[in-house]
Amino acid sequence: MMHVTLESIQAARGRIRGAITHTPCPYSPGLSRLYGCEIYCKFDHLQRTGSFKERGARNKLLTLSEEQKRAGVVAVSAGNHALGLACHGEQLGIPVTVVMPRWAPLIKVSNCRLFGANIIQHGESYAEAKLLAEKLGRERKLTFISGFDDAEIIAGQGTMGLEILEDVPDVDAIVVGVGGGGLIAGVAVAVKGLKPDVRIIGAESDRARTMYASLHHGCVVPCPTQPTLADGLAVAEAGGLCFDIVRELVEQIVLVDELQIATAILRLLEMEKTLVEGAAAVPLAVVSTQKLGLEGKKVVLCLGGGNIDMTLLGHIIERGLAADGRLCRIYAYISDRPGSLAQLLAVIAETAASVKEVSHDRSFGPADVGRVGVVCVMETRDFAHIGQITEALTRAGIELRG
Amino acid sequence: MMHVTLESIQAARGRIRGAITHTPCPYSPGLSRLYGCEIYCKFDHLQRTGSFKERGARNKLLTLSEEQKRAGVVAVSAGNHALGLACHGEQLGIPVTVVMPRWAPLIKVSNCRLFGANIIQHGESYAEAKLLAEKLGRERKLTFISGFDDAEIIAGQGTMGLEILEDVPDVDAIVVGVGGGGLIAGVAVAVKGLKPDVRIIGAESDRARTMYASLHHGCVVPCPTQPTLADGLAVAEAGGLCFDIVRELVEQIVLVDELQIATAILRLLEMEKTLVEGAAAVPLAVVSTQKLGLEGKKVVLCLGGGNIDMTLLGHIIERGLAADGRLCRIYAYISDRPGSLAQLLAVIAETAASVKEVSHDRSFGPADVGRVGVVCVMETRDFAHIGQITEALTRAGIELRG
Repeated sequence: MMHVTLESIQAARGRIRGAITHTPCPYSPGLSRLYGCEIYCKFDHLQRTGSFKERGARNKLLTLSEEQKRAGVVAVSAGNHALGLACHGEQLGIPVTVVMPRWAPLIKVSNCRLFGANIIQHGESYAEAKLLAEKLGRERKLTFISGFDDAEIIAGQGTMGLEILEDVPDVDAIVVGVGGGGLIAGVAVAVKGLKPDVRIIGAESDRARTMYASLHHGCVVPCPTQPTLADGLAVAEAGGLCFDIVRELVEQIVLVDELQIATAILRLLEMEKTLVEGAAAVPLAVVSTQKLGLEGKKVVLCLGGGNIDMTLLGHIIERGLAADGRLCRIYAYISDRPGSLAQLLAVIAETAASVKEVSHDRSFGPADVGRVGVVCVMETRDFAHIGQITEALTRAGIELRG
Repeated sequence: MMHVTLESIQAARGRIRGAITHTPCPYSPGLSRLYGCEIYCKFDHLQRTGSFKERGARNKLLTLSEEQKRAGVVAVSAGNHALGLACHGEQLGIPVTVVMPRWAPLIKVSNCRLFGANIIQHGESYAEAKLLAEKLGRERKLTFISGFDDAEIIAGQGTMGLEILEDVPDVDAIVVGVGGGGLIAGVAVAVKGLKPDVRIIGAESDRARTMYASLHHGCVVPCPTQPTLADGLAVAEAGGLCFDIVRELVEQIVLVDELQIATAILRLLEMEKTLVEGAAAVPLAVVSTQKLGLEGKKVVLCLGGGNIDMTLLGHIIERGLAADGRLCRIYAYISDRPGSLAQLLAVIAETAASVKEVSHDRSFGPADVGRVGVVCVMETRDFAHIGQITEALTRAGIELRG
């Protein structure tokens, strides 16, 4: 039996109205031209705390009994769920305790404290943090709130689906990132309830293929995750309630790799001037790399979160540029005599590449002590340009390491 | 006599309607709380080619005679003016030639070509490129279109002012970046024409203080510029027509430095999830650092462009984080014996700073050969945190270079 219905999502909509932003869902001419379908981006990372998690958090808080509201709630989260609860708990006067694993980013810890939440940093893993949260729940009579596997959380997230149908009424497909599965379950129930022909496609990182693995097994299975740019999607296992809905209503789950995610973040920055976190770039990564029969169709990408670590962003941009052929790194062997480096750089200059960084690799260079290794990082136009550079260097007698 | 009037701006509005986006101007709760006034951001970097320049370009193209339209236009630009003309020239069937200095970013050159413009890369400086553009204009009967000093260009940019008054009718002040002065002149005429009490404040980089210097001298003076993050504002001299309007209608021009611009770009990325170029971050840099009597007032910041070089962005983020006390670099002298580096890192680890990069400075370290210099880059919470780190290191007997 399904606990989330179109009606419960519509009720959630009424409940959270005014406190949750109806975010824009603009058409993107640039992405559409590039990928051959009509692309709209649901900018839900423009919610106040930078993610869609507020929808479910507020709906859940509002459906608690008066006694539960007075006692307060507890959750475990290193990120957006914590921010959503903290923000709306403060607004509604409901005490919020969040257990965050010790590795939670400093910025999220301090932002949650800004909203007046009681933050406890505990445990090396999510699982350890969760044990403490459950213990606190029992001891202090706090209601434990899951980030995804809860009918009222899912109903709240589903309100995004209602907004999409209002803003892009003739949408053909909606692509949603999948972690625990709360967002895609809510969106699927809302959209299929009103327009059964709209395709709902799930997008996962191949390093955190929780829902993919569970669908493959026919039941929820724990799935070890590896570190991924889409850290917001990396949960230990899919929610059981979410799984039941996804199995019934979601057409397919597609996997993407890290480089595809980095490239998608870069595209959204450059073409849409908008910053998303890895988890929110996964839908574009899917549409830009997979054959899904979406040519010419109206496709909405759910950009669910924008809370990305700024020091990480610099590295992501570089990876994305490299994947695009717009940043290139060569390792050349040159003679140790004066003038060799100048010659190398002259050859490169003739190809119109712009050198960003040069470094000598003296200690760990080639065995031949008359030669040194040089690492050179350049800005290039595309892969064809990189081909021209390596060709010019080879023609000039400079040996490159492959 | 003024050549730009409220009526000419309203006429421009009618002319370009449908082809230019009425961009959003959302309220920013985060920036407002941080800086103590009610901040709205005019997202004009979300125009199709990533800047407000389309407004003037399209208006100007539409006011040409049929003969001029057939013959085509020529301009000199390394950036947004070129993109705006190329895009709307293609839509209107008007041939566009742009002379770009040789150093123009590869990405802008190829984007302009995508719109079918005839791009000529010529000259080491803007002035050299301009000479060729004017020569082509004479020889091929192409109409030369200035990026700012033209009544129809200014009228087009002024349409942004009309949109701002519609979306934030009770605005108290509007802050606009100033290069040649076309945008601020247009916005000032539009806004002062309808609501004379709204303050118009200009924002310039202190490394390209064109309008500031001209106002100081009482007439347009050439002003040498230095490289700046706000490269879109770095012109050789203000427009004469723009100057006359600014002198009459603009309250003041405020200067900001590079670090303030970098920090503003970072704030907009983190808090608004939006990417702007340096020139467009200057208004926020002004509001966040200067005392302008705006406390509690409704202030609109014009974010005019989002075309920023991606390889540059990584460096800007790092500078912004450093200016915020969230990235810190220390240079420590440690003993050359095994274990010294481990001790240094242990002291740092106890302060909960996260080390990003460590490098030994053997060749150019201290004169005392028993000691080496170590450069350590860390992620920190704020300047107080950095103070704790240097204190802990000093207590542990580790000498730091100031």
